[in-house]
Amino acid sequence: MSTALARDLAAIVGAEHVLEPAPAPYLADGTESRGVSGAAAAVVLPGSAEEVARVARWCFEHRIAMVPRGGGTGAAAGAVPAEGQVVVGLERLTAVRRFDPLHWRIHVEAGLRTGDVHRLARESGLCFPPDPGAAEQSQIGGNIATNAGGPHAFKYGVTGRWVTGIEAVVWPGELVTVGGPLRKDVAGYDLKSLLIGSEGTLGIITAAWLRLIPAPEAALPVAAVYPDHEAGCDAIEAVLGSGLQPAALEHIDGEALAVSAAAFPIALAEPGFMVIAEADGDPEAAERLRDELVSVLGDGALAVHAPTERRDVEALWRWRDGVSYAVAGHLGHTIAEDVGVPVDRLRDIVAQTAEIGARHGAPGCTWGHAGDGNVHAHFMFAPSDAAGRAAALAAADELVALAVELGGTVSGEHGIGTLKREHLREHTPTGLLELEQRVKAAFDPLGLLNPGKAI
Amino acid sequence: MSTALARDLAAIVGAEHVLEPAPAPYLADGTESRGVSGAAAAVVLPGSAEEVARVARWCFEHRIAMVPRGGGTGAAAGAVPAEGQVVVGLERLTAVRRFDPLHWRIHVEAGLRTGDVHRLARESGLCFPPDPGAAEQSQIGGNIATNAGGPHAFKYGVTGRWVTGIEAVVWPGELVTVGGPLRKDVAGYDLKSLLIGSEGTLGIITAAWLRLIPAPEAALPVAAVYPDHEAGCDAIEAVLGSGLQPAALEHIDGEALAVSAAAFPIALAEPGFMVIAEADGDPEAAERLRDELVSVLGDGALAVHAPTERRDVEALWRWRDGVSYAVAGHLGHTIAEDVGVPVDRLRDIVAQTAEIGARHGAPGCTWGHAGDGNVHAHFMFAPSDAAGRAAALAAADELVALAVELGGTVSGEHGIGTLKREHLREHTPTGLLELEQRVKAAFDPLGLLNPGKAI
Repeated sequence: MSTALARDLAAIVGAEHVLEPAPAPYLADGTESRGVSGAAAAVVLPGSAEEVARVARWCFEHRIAMVPRGGGTGAAAGAVPAEGQVVVGLERLTAVRRFDPLHWRIHVEAGLRTGDVHRLARESGLCFPPDPGAAEQSQIGGNIATNAGGPHAFKYGVTGRWVTGIEAVVWPGELVTVGGPLRKDVAGYDLKSLLIGSEGTLGIITAAWLRLIPAPEAALPVAAVYPDHEAGCDAIEAVLGSGLQPAALEHIDGEALAVSAAAFPIALAEPGFMVIAEADGDPEAAERLRDELVSVLGDGALAVHAPTERRDVEALWRWRDGVSYAVAGHLGHTIAEDVGVPVDRLRDIVAQTAEIGARHGAPGCTWGHAGDGNVHAHFMFAPSDAAGRAAALAAADELVALAVELGGTVSGEHGIGTLKREHLREHTPTGLLELEQRVKAAFDPLGLLNPGKAI
Repeated sequence: MSTALARDLAAIVGAEHVLEPAPAPYLADGTESRGVSGAAAAVVLPGSAEEVARVARWCFEHRIAMVPRGGGTGAAAGAVPAEGQVVVGLERLTAVRRFDPLHWRIHVEAGLRTGDVHRLARESGLCFPPDPGAAEQSQIGGNIATNAGGPHAFKYGVTGRWVTGIEAVVWPGELVTVGGPLRKDVAGYDLKSLLIGSEGTLGIITAAWLRLIPAPEAALPVAAVYPDHEAGCDAIEAVLGSGLQPAALEHIDGEALAVSAAAFPIALAEPGFMVIAEADGDPEAAERLRDELVSVLGDGALAVHAPTERRDVEALWRWRDGVSYAVAGHLGHTIAEDVGVPVDRLRDIVAQTAEIGARHGAPGCTWGHAGDGNVHAHFMFAPSDAAGRAAALAAADELVALAVELGGTVSGEHGIGTLKREHLREHTPTGLLELEQRVKAAFDPLGLLNPGKAI
């Protein structure tokens, strides 16, 4: 407790909840493998929303910048602090304030792990549909602050769609609630949606009311492999054009399959592209939809894998989750981009990722949430290969510009953080950027809430 | 063309598209029956988004306030202008800029009627789920600006959930686009959601990208009547607790039934409460869900009506749409409130609406979107009865305060406009009101966009 700052914060949260100097794990997030890390004056771990408000009030008064931190799994460096800033960790705010399974809603504090939200819902026959990766580490507050996505967003939408109320600390250290356990509310501006995805730059989310739905009784995936991306993208378009509504509609391209197919549950013969769709609902409806998906996806496919046993279904999704690790491990490092395009431009972005990578000398591959046009593109290089790293970075820049040119966005689900700020600045009209800055100033006139992030 | 204002605007849009003096129909909206109407310097009807931008730029430069106007069916006087203001009617912006049925999306201009959006989608086997009333008169831009709801919001959510991109004119007369034909986008703040429901106070919406879904093949309603509201609310809770997911879950209380039951498709014996649920999906799944709803709703019911023929289904919903007219016609006038409560407080708001009305001497009744906790409460009086009108207004105020006390909102789906501003002010914490005013100033520093509305 060497500084006045730490002593003042300790007076609010207790000495054992101020970490100073800031331990290394609090200085990085999911971008650590890219070599991103920061510094901080201290880490403070409030024990309640009221303590968060008091910490924030102290920081505003002393002109100290704050970096709210959830599980630290972000992919855009939104939780990475800078010299002199205070990391406000929400990890002690884990209470389930209220759970009304009969009314399909739950009121949770920001630090509750997303996996715990899933488990609680499931134990009561309900479902919290958003399924971003790293659910066991990420926290619901962080998922909301980044408006996290995931495979099942295709049918169910991203995290924000399931949030009906937010409690947050806003300038000058006030605890406010927007929305609540309400399914409909049009009173005043939608500040809730503005806080969602704002990466802690407008307020610090301390709790949320979430909407749940009855859990689909069955979930039956269908994985189909194709000789190349053209055939695979034809299949995706065929699913959309068929009017079927799968819960998820994913793709993995040939380059990503090349490094991950060995671990696939069944043997695959030189697949050039994979599509995974999932049918869910009551068992009979899910089976019927699954059969229709098998029929539509089967057209032009080399093979179709449609597991029905629970362990086989889980194995398929576990493999899907592992694709990013297989790609990351192939050469040792990747530069990852997360872009969104209109779904009819999927085939362009897939084809050109490989071309751009090849041209720059950093092998490129894509996978992601095809039905949402949300593509994760990775450019690979070896850790010691400085030229490869530069090539991968150049390839990534070109890819983002291409996504925008195709009518898309610089970030489909990972957010802006610091990593994508230049992309955002470059590809957003000046008028809109100024509007976003005025909105930021309306919430945070001193610029102390996670400065340098999101916009 | 008697004024300089009219001549300047005519130079932008053509003389035949400036109406001056402003014709009466442009001075009122859906609140006309409450005696609300305004005045305006002129009505201008731009023929393109670019013309809207030029009109706005002229108005900002000349410090003239603008009132954007869609179909004029709003229930909160959000489109009613005041002396000296210019009504900007979007009725000429009716183009379908693009329709990609295979990709489940449509790009439409703001003035297209909502009913036309529904028809276009349906002709391609798709569905635009939001179904607020007055679809044949209201325009999609107005629906977005008010974030309109409707019965099927229970399963499908309100209008905003289906909007992926907005084109709008913002200060100082710039045409901007937020979002687009993208299903996922987390780049920058969610200005799209902020514009949705902002009642024209932050910008003038000129076009929108809408998300569509494959149309449910079947929609099978179940109407059940109960002896009283307690039994009816028990049935609603039973549906929620059963884990079934109907597309709509509506209620009509005994007082509203008393003046409308005669027109119901089948004879009803002294019903004290009605619940209507609808099962949708593929035909087999919808039938199965319908059967389950019949079983759950049948418990404690006096009668269950579950039509299967298309014309009978349509007759049921037509009757449901007519309830508000039957109530309005009963004594001649009503003061209507639209509140939202947590769904477990539905029985309180229903019971107390009748009590409050009786106490004030203005008969009260409710109906609405029970599953969403969204209640339309009406207090009836005769047109010539000044005391009755005062009683109805006092009863309505008390009802709104009660909704907030129950953890609810002053507006579930009708918006704030001018009618609910006092309610909003009274029931919103000062810190949040100030935040909303700063957001307003960030978008509209001169305060010329629909001043006096929404916040």
